[in-house]
Amino acid sequence: MSTGTTEHDVLGLAVRAREAARVLAIATRAEKDAALEAMAAALLAQAPMLLAANAEDVARAEEGGTPPNVVDRLRLTDDRLAAMAQGLRDVAGLPDPVGELVRGGTLANGLELRQVRVPFGVVGMIYEARPNVTADAAGICLKSGNAVLLRGSSSAAASNAAVVEVLRAAAASTGLPADVVQLVPSDSRDTVKALMRARGHVDVLIPRGGAGLIRSVVEESTVPVIETGVGNCHVYVDRAADLDRALAIVLNAKTHRTSVCNAAESLLVHADLAATFLPRVVVALQEAGVTIHGDEAFAAHDGVVPATEDDFATEYLSLDISAAVVPDLDAALAHVRRYSSGHSDAIVTEDQRAARRFVAEVDSAAVLVNASTRFTDGGEFGFGAEIGISTQKLHARGPMGLPEMTSTKYVVTGDGHVR
Amino acid sequence: MSTGTTEHDVLGLAVRAREAARVLAIATRAEKDAALEAMAAALLAQAPMLLAANAEDVARAEEGGTPPNVVDRLRLTDDRLAAMAQGLRDVAGLPDPVGELVRGGTLANGLELRQVRVPFGVVGMIYEARPNVTADAAGICLKSGNAVLLRGSSSAAASNAAVVEVLRAAAASTGLPADVVQLVPSDSRDTVKALMRARGHVDVLIPRGGAGLIRSVVEESTVPVIETGVGNCHVYVDRAADLDRALAIVLNAKTHRTSVCNAAESLLVHADLAATFLPRVVVALQEAGVTIHGDEAFAAHDGVVPATEDDFATEYLSLDISAAVVPDLDAALAHVRRYSSGHSDAIVTEDQRAARRFVAEVDSAAVLVNASTRFTDGGEFGFGAEIGISTQKLHARGPMGLPEMTSTKYVVTGDGHVR
Repeated sequence: MSTGTTEHDVLGLAVRAREAARVLAIATRAEKDAALEAMAAALLAQAPMLLAANAEDVARAEEGGTPPNVVDRLRLTDDRLAAMAQGLRDVAGLPDPVGELVRGGTLANGLELRQVRVPFGVVGMIYEARPNVTADAAGICLKSGNAVLLRGSSSAAASNAAVVEVLRAAAASTGLPADVVQLVPSDSRDTVKALMRARGHVDVLIPRGGAGLIRSVVEESTVPVIETGVGNCHVYVDRAADLDRALAIVLNAKTHRTSVCNAAESLLVHADLAATFLPRVVVALQEAGVTIHGDEAFAAHDGVVPATEDDFATEYLSLDISAAVVPDLDAALAHVRRYSSGHSDAIVTEDQRAARRFVAEVDSAAVLVNASTRFTDGGEFGFGAEIGISTQKLHARGPMGLPEMTSTKYVVTGDGHVR
Repeated sequence: MSTGTTEHDVLGLAVRAREAARVLAIATRAEKDAALEAMAAALLAQAPMLLAANAEDVARAEEGGTPPNVVDRLRLTDDRLAAMAQGLRDVAGLPDPVGELVRGGTLANGLELRQVRVPFGVVGMIYEARPNVTADAAGICLKSGNAVLLRGSSSAAASNAAVVEVLRAAAASTGLPADVVQLVPSDSRDTVKALMRARGHVDVLIPRGGAGLIRSVVEESTVPVIETGVGNCHVYVDRAADLDRALAIVLNAKTHRTSVCNAAESLLVHADLAATFLPRVVVALQEAGVTIHGDEAFAAHDGVVPATEDDFATEYLSLDISAAVVPDLDAALAHVRRYSSGHSDAIVTEDQRAARRFVAEVDSAAVLVNASTRFTDGGEFGFGAEIGISTQKLHARGPMGLPEMTSTKYVVTGDGHVR
């Protein structure tokens, strides 16, 4: 007999979330902001308890031989708790998307038609390692009027339980139902499956993490999913590029931060630049510690590793980049079409015609002209908060802020109108 | 050995659709409108051929003992062809959603950020009986820049093949790829399954038809789905209702057209009105030929059939209505929460407070105050064309016009910006 959490248990959480969501959906902005402020204050006030819980997770990870960089992502510190609290306060400072008028007017027959933003209801988040996501997601969901079911990683189980405990108590202290935030136990993979099967109980699932996690949720879930985050991002240096700009953009896109989905993973260079730009970019990347997996033209340079077909399809998330020379813009577009994951792709060019074609024909969430792919980010876009970056076309595409965490409702008001 | 259409064949159609979608995505409005006009003209010019093909389907249906009302939905006439042609011309007259600026501005660092509407790419439509949907869907998809894979009913196979043939030739005559419109054979249920498994090849699936079809697509598809059309719609007559208005709205919502998803299926009446309104509404509905499936209070009236639990959950799509007396607004809201399919629910009241609570707390695509549920319709809302009515919360909710058939893309333009 299993003593783990069952599908039935998870459905029970979802039913409680639905009840809490009903209350939250009609809460005022002032009520939600008060809860967010209380949650932020509680994270700071409860720091010793939270750090102690996190120390358990860290010790377990270290004993289990978890690589140091993964342990680091798991670790909470006073600074990280302060950042989590600040994140909640930042969300409190953002406009409330709920009730926003999307469009409206009076029809010819006098009916008044309004389309207004409303919460989804119950949101399921499935995510890995970092315990800060627990507070970030709870804050964004609460402000957008959604009850959230948080299914974090088992490696962060003690940290997440402690954070959620603090957030629930804080929400309740301001009069909201504690069940607006609930942790789904991570003691079994079955709890993920239960979320994926909870159609009607969970309105949308958002997986955040590695490509494998996201693919399995997308393929198996009967609950609508917002796919996030896999980024095989390209920088194409066009014939008409300013080479200094191109060099700066390639270096920034690849090396500014390697573990993020908007980092560049592939470099394409117009053939006319092979003699002038290739030597410069190869040396600059190598000096920055990058391993170049290059096609024949690149591999003619010292230290470049010959690329396989797989390299061009790989999201390295490390100091590696695939690189190829393309004969023209058409070939660059064809390459991007074939290999891009549809996250962020950039062109560097001073040629207006090339820029317009690239923008029109590259089918990605973000297309950048003379700018680093690193700019595809809710913070950089000025959204104030981001729950993830959608790489699907339905509902939301690109960085998702508060409005993307809502649905809409039509309100039709008449004076006894009939057809 | 099967000689029917295989999953591989359907994927082949999807690959051709993707190629056509690339061309269509960057077609101008003028090019798309010219194709729509040519398609309209061709439907009229080819009327004899289309009617002959349709006669085959009708004869087969009649021989098979199909009920007359279903045969009628299948039948094409000169008038219906004219309406299909006019529908295409109407779509040509609508603004092009592609390229529309959703939001935009300049960030603090000088980066120019624009969110613009772009087509999904390849849309799959799975639908039943009516061959006019074939032309309607093709027109809406074409105008919104999407290549479409049309999987109609096998009962309309000859009609759909003829219509698609005409539309493809017309599109090609104006320079667009014929493959912007393709028919998926209906010779096997496997072709539906193939569409549902074509993730990456098909960007979105829209099922239109009965509840069983929609449920199976929603549950089995790995391609993102927009759920449409099941409507268990309520009219709640509040204590503070104007009873003349209430009577007109109930009759219109139930009897104006019974086979549509925005028809009322359930009537709730405040207990304070039991003595005054119940006798009137029972008689009026019965005089209009409606069978009332009522709770105890309703069943005390002559001719009312006692309702079972199932009745309240049923979308009749016929001259039947479930009916119950509720003690107060809270009970009405609880009933709607329990039984509504989230399509359209109406309150009849002169009480502002009751109206505001109903609007805020009923979680449906459309909430109507003192208006018939029949108004939830793309045409009535002024959208000019409608591909269906979404009853899900992700992406689009309520009637879907051209903008709802698009995704968006962020375009970021800089001067060599790096982080």
